[in-house]
Amino acid sequence: MNLQFSQQDQDLLKEIMMSRRDIRGNSFLREEIPVREMQEILQAGLLAPSVGYSQPWHFVWIRDADKRQSLYNAYKRSSQKASQAFSAEKKRQYDALKLEGIQEAPVLLAVYYRRSQQPVLGQHSMPKMGLFSVICAIQNMWLMARAKNIGMGWVSILESQEVDVLLDAPTHFEFVGLLCFGYVREFPAEPMLKTIRWSETKPLQDVLSFDVCVYSTDA
Amino acid sequence: MNLQFSQQDQDLLKEIMMSRRDIRGNSFLREEIPVREMQEILQAGLLAPSVGYSQPWHFVWIRDADKRQSLYNAYKRSSQKASQAFSAEKKRQYDALKLEGIQEAPVLLAVYYRRSQQPVLGQHSMPKMGLFSVICAIQNMWLMARAKNIGMGWVSILESQEVDVLLDAPTHFEFVGLLCFGYVREFPAEPMLKTIRWSETKPLQDVLSFDVCVYSTDA
Repeated sequence: MNLQFSQQDQDLLKEIMMSRRDIRGNSFLREEIPVREMQEILQAGLLAPSVGYSQPWHFVWIRDADKRQSLYNAYKRSSQKASQAFSAEKKRQYDALKLEGIQEAPVLLAVYYRRSQQPVLGQHSMPKMGLFSVICAIQNMWLMARAKNIGMGWVSILESQEVDVLLDAPTHFEFVGLLCFGYVREFPAEPMLKTIRWSETKPLQDVLSFDVCVYSTDA
Repeated sequence: MNLQFSQQDQDLLKEIMMSRRDIRGNSFLREEIPVREMQEILQAGLLAPSVGYSQPWHFVWIRDADKRQSLYNAYKRSSQKASQAFSAEKKRQYDALKLEGIQEAPVLLAVYYRRSQQPVLGQHSMPKMGLFSVICAIQNMWLMARAKNIGMGWVSILESQEVDVLLDAPTHFEFVGLLCFGYVREFPAEPMLKTIRWSETKPLQDVLSFDVCVYSTDA
């Protein structure tokens, strides 16, 4: 396959990456996503690289309203716990943030890593490689959703044990994240946590060094 | 930002994803990659989502020939160890495979996850989220490299402790992968491990279930 991409193609890919956002509940519209669109987003996930071609991903599409509500309750509990970890000022800021769209998003997808029972090529020295493959699939899905003008948010404020019980996950499944999908009012121009100055943007020179790890210590 | 992408844009993104491959040494050309191209690939990494906007990535560009050789030697040792894990037939197949391009690729980049000393928003219940952000950056870089007709290979057959010593990594840095970049003779039409029937392609219906984890047990 000697498909050659052009400068224009690179620019388009960069635009998709630049305008991809983590979408929260206050941005989602109620409009349903056609099943075919969701299938194409999932298919983009399946195009991700996977260690030893293991394709160790599993997706659970949450259609049951009670399960959705239970996931939201689990989020609330986790979020209250997480809030305690911050200093007073950050805690005040944190408590005012809308961090998920579990109740609002038309489509909810839980993502799992399925551990292989067999040795996986490329995973012997680095056992997390299977998990990493699943993350590559999520990033593919996020970009494809954005190209379809569909917003996605990744909820990580959940105790995996609670989600596992709710979704009957066997012990060789590891919960990776809960993804919320929906059409949006708009894609914010920059990450919300940048806008509110929760943290600063790191320029390339701060995260790149040559031959050895050299880094600024102020982060 | 209300940038709307078209069907044509989605098709192009899908083509980039479909034609992205894990590139090994026998495919890399010697031709140098202009620094500007590598910077743009790295900038695509910086456009990845990161938990709590923590941007916890660090890249080490290996320019030193001795370090490159040491990394290759470390790969050889790890690979010999990993080979033992397979059954006789798989082992024979494994030993015949070219799995990396450490000596051939014009650019070598080690990727690290830099653990924060402060609490990170969204990482309290799921401590691996920082690591996952770094993987999203790698997938962005992989796609941008492909759009630039530059091949990338991810080497995971390395003991992190050995790489850490070689690159002076402090204890709060976690090694994530060694990336090899270069122009290529061609991008194979499908994953090499699919071509040699190392494992089969999993269709969407095998990795998707509704409301609970349901999966076939034959994998």
